[in-house]
Amino acid sequence: MSDIRFDVVGIGNAIVDVIGRCDEDFLARIGAPKGHMRLVDAGTVGGLYQAMGPAVEISGGSVANTMVGIASFGGRSAFIGKIAQDEFGRIFAHDIRAAGVFFQTAPSDSRIPTARSLILVTPDGERTMNTFLGVSPDLDRGEVDPEVIRSAGIVYLEGYLFDRPEAKEAFRQAAGLAAQAGRKVALSLSDAFCVDRHRAEFRDLIRSSVNILIANESEITSLYQVDAFEEAARLAQSDTPMAVLTRSARGSVIYARGHDPIPIPAVPVDPVIDTTGAGDLYAAGFLYGIASGRNLEVAGRLGSLAAAEVIGILGARPQRKLAALARSHGLV
Amino acid sequence: MSDIRFDVVGIGNAIVDVIGRCDEDFLARIGAPKGHMRLVDAGTVGGLYQAMGPAVEISGGSVANTMVGIASFGGRSAFIGKIAQDEFGRIFAHDIRAAGVFFQTAPSDSRIPTARSLILVTPDGERTMNTFLGVSPDLDRGEVDPEVIRSAGIVYLEGYLFDRPEAKEAFRQAAGLAAQAGRKVALSLSDAFCVDRHRAEFRDLIRSSVNILIANESEITSLYQVDAFEEAARLAQSDTPMAVLTRSARGSVIYARGHDPIPIPAVPVDPVIDTTGAGDLYAAGFLYGIASGRNLEVAGRLGSLAAAEVIGILGARPQRKLAALARSHGLV
Repeated sequence: MSDIRFDVVGIGNAIVDVIGRCDEDFLARIGAPKGHMRLVDAGTVGGLYQAMGPAVEISGGSVANTMVGIASFGGRSAFIGKIAQDEFGRIFAHDIRAAGVFFQTAPSDSRIPTARSLILVTPDGERTMNTFLGVSPDLDRGEVDPEVIRSAGIVYLEGYLFDRPEAKEAFRQAAGLAAQAGRKVALSLSDAFCVDRHRAEFRDLIRSSVNILIANESEITSLYQVDAFEEAARLAQSDTPMAVLTRSARGSVIYARGHDPIPIPAVPVDPVIDTTGAGDLYAAGFLYGIASGRNLEVAGRLGSLAAAEVIGILGARPQRKLAALARSHGLV
Repeated sequence: MSDIRFDVVGIGNAIVDVIGRCDEDFLARIGAPKGHMRLVDAGTVGGLYQAMGPAVEISGGSVANTMVGIASFGGRSAFIGKIAQDEFGRIFAHDIRAAGVFFQTAPSDSRIPTARSLILVTPDGERTMNTFLGVSPDLDRGEVDPEVIRSAGIVYLEGYLFDRPEAKEAFRQAAGLAAQAGRKVALSLSDAFCVDRHRAEFRDLIRSSVNILIANESEITSLYQVDAFEEAARLAQSDTPMAVLTRSARGSVIYARGHDPIPIPAVPVDPVIDTTGAGDLYAAGFLYGIASGRNLEVAGRLGSLAAAEVIGILGARPQRKLAALARSHGLV
């Protein structure tokens, strides 16, 4: 069995976010479901970019953001994801490595570009994502390095990978390798619309292979097709040993076998600048907490703290060291 | 004589800023003069990018930022500057047009890339720039559209253009066309090191062709090689009909023939996030004020307001509408 080199290895889409502000009318006009991620093709992303206002480019990608957050807490994290040999690919690789994340996935030599997500932030701070996946799903078996998977305590996978068959295959392979090596498998459900596209597969996977499920309220109720959060939470508990369910400003609840539910308050944020990355950074705090041996409540509070930090800035990558922030809050 | 279509047309370098945070040691290690702009070549910019931390990409360029600021105030502005047909060029063109600035300079078909400036922000909020000009100086006579120049009330030129002969030629041509058409020529001295490189030419130009000179304290004292601000200001007044001199937190002073010096207080900013663009946005407020017929004091106060706004955010492009901000301060 390999030694543990990483606290967490994440597999996900390698995306550069193109973030701009818009009003509610603009969202309605382009038909984007507010607060959600929708997939768009190359032509649509080009047209939307033309139509949207001035933007800022910041590296993103859900699980990639989580790995950066873990590194910012002082944890050891690695990321597997596909970029192209283009400017956005260079930006993505630079930023994740400069943040201290191990990232060695070879860039594609195809002419398909690096993924980008046009993120529209409305005046209430809510983000709506229009994602062109580009080369990102081109993760075939060669990309998932078994040594990296085996050398991480937790393998963290994003539900978004299910949107393309090639990526889904990488996802399944990583989950299998982790289980074989006795590592934990964590899954983010990513987005309620994504859950809707892959409900049956997600439910099978959660029952058979997931040790830690991370989801927000709309994702978990979509998964179980129920209206009430409590009902969805009950179903999740019977499917997986640990479910961490976030509820935006209402905080989160950790359901772990052998424990009573552990409610975690949200850390208040005023003003809300941009909610992009809130869930990703909650996952960073929680997974870092678990990987570093903190108890569940502290892990959840680290999650709340990191989420609050990223809501107060533009983009999904924290600018201040989360380790220092956690110390100043007496959590580490 | 053409009709006035634009309040201000700006000519400058078309740059995408790559902004990251660093400590004082990093600046010292790479030998970058704090608070200034230095020119670097393609190899150096690549090496610095590798060495610097995570970054954010935001359109920039000194005079381009000013034109965006004028549009944000509700003014009509145009920009002339050279981009390549690459990702950074597409970002630059998108952002300036989406901000409402007229921008029609044809992209270069050479393989030289679009300019970028690696901007390192220290914990005190001061920015230090490492600029690779790329294709930006390739402004030959064809780029300076005489119709655009003649149709603007003010032509605004950045001193940085003097750093390359091709751009300097475009600069001189624009100044000549503006004078011939009875338009005002405004000049930004850009940077004290830039002044040092071109002192004699700048002084000749200011005496012969500049109606409005905009400079900060270190630039104007470098221009006249004197220690005291007051002495530099006295010399500037004898060289040009209007000198607008900024002094960071100490505000600015407007020296106009036929007027007593007009001191303008700075608008306090706390916290200082990033000083990138402070001078550019001061110029935006001032030139918008002049072009829209405000008196000199109001023009200066519009400058202070816009500078404060941009110091409170990352990057040099305001995110809120300056017109609304000016209204809320009773200035328009």
